[in-house]
Amino acid sequence: MNPMTASNLKSAFGGESMAHMRYISWGEAAKKEGFPNVWNLFNAVSYAEQVHAANHFRELKKEVGEASVTAGAGFGMTNTAENLQGAIDGENYEVDQMYPAFIQVANMQEEKSSIRSFQFALEAEKTHAALFTEAKGRVEQGKDFDESRVHVCNICGYTITGETVEDDCPICKAKPEMFRCFDTNVQ
Amino acid sequence: MNPMTASNLKSAFGGESMAHMRYISWGEAAKKEGFPNVWNLFNAVSYAEQVHAANHFRELKKEVGEASVTAGAGFGMTNTAENLQGAIDGENYEVDQMYPAFIQVANMQEEKSSIRSFQFALEAEKTHAALFTEAKGRVEQGKDFDESRVHVCNICGYTITGETVEDDCPICKAKPEMFRCFDTNVQ
Ligand SMILES: [Fe+2]
Ligand SMILES: [Fe+2]
Ligand SMILES: [Fe+2]
Ligand SMILES: [Fe+2]
Ligand SMILES: [Fe+2]
Ligand SMILES: [Fe+2]
Repeated sequence: MNPMTASNLKSAFGGESMAHMRYISWGEAAKKEGFPNVWNLFNAVSYAEQVHAANHFRELKKEVGEASVTAGAGFGMTNTAENLQGAIDGENYEVDQMYPAFIQVANMQEEKSSIRSFQFALEAEKTHAALFTEAKGRVEQGKDFDESRVHVCNICGYTITGETVEDDCPICKAKPEMFRCFDTNVQ
Repeated sequence: MNPMTASNLKSAFGGESMAHMRYISWGEAAKKEGFPNVWNLFNAVSYAEQVHAANHFRELKKEVGEASVTAGAGFGMTNTAENLQGAIDGENYEVDQMYPAFIQVANMQEEKSSIRSFQFALEAEKTHAALFTEAKGRVEQGKDFDESRVHVCNICGYTITGETVEDDCPICKAKPEMFRCFDTNVQ
């Protein structure tokens, strides 16, 4: 694999791993603050970031050994509205800056399967930014996020709300049974 | 908080988040390779790294905003014996290099609660290195790790095998009921 694409995969793996972890912490804080559906949303999106991290890691399978990884990450634990804003900022950075740049380089280097791993994440992050924005609007009115069921595609991390998944994944075409369901009342 | 200790906490958070994630991937590979107890061990230790990451993240609660984080991480997916060696190398790096250095600086800067977060991780990593070394010895003989139950302290990430937890945590003094149990046959 071209070293520049390998370095970008490592950076994306680092960013996704840290996003996964901070959504778990911010989710627990949301639950304590009295927003169980925000907690459930954070858990679901945390899992989607795990899907992205695992996809990037798998691409790096032949890059054996230790490496120094530099990646962007958000910090801070103030209150749920601000944590949601931190999450939105992180998602938007990935959508507007990080993944478009990594895809551009991977295209130039013709790293086909890496392009796919980056592209899946880019498209899924858009759904995360939208869901967190919706949740933040509710929390700012003192209300919980109004969806208690969130579904995550196991293949690409695409994330939607609703009772059930009716259609194939619009990003990766996976069947509805490939989605993992997160329910506020069943955990 | 002193910027140097904050920077070290961020780096440790990055390293723990990536360790958490790669143990999930290496665990799935071990299961496919026919080592279900190694899969369970990777899952348990992955959870212990989540405890460390969440502890460091909590220390950083007032450090609101985006940051660039540089952290060490292991890569590669060859076979389970080699993945276990990658895990051992990562744990030993934390025990011998990373955490002693971070604790030294935190001591100098009198960052009491950060010292505690680093110290818990340092001591727990020693148990991880020992368990992975045991598992690797078995796998090299073509056998599975012989323990199907692994217990992780929720407070400090201390990790032990056995039917039940009898004693308080030797690192943080938590009661046996503060441990989370990972069982190969119950997941
Ligand atoms: Fe992601
Ligand atoms: Fe995302
Ligand atoms: Fe998908
Ligand atoms: Fe750790
Ligand atoms: Fe560890
Ligand atoms: Fe403990």
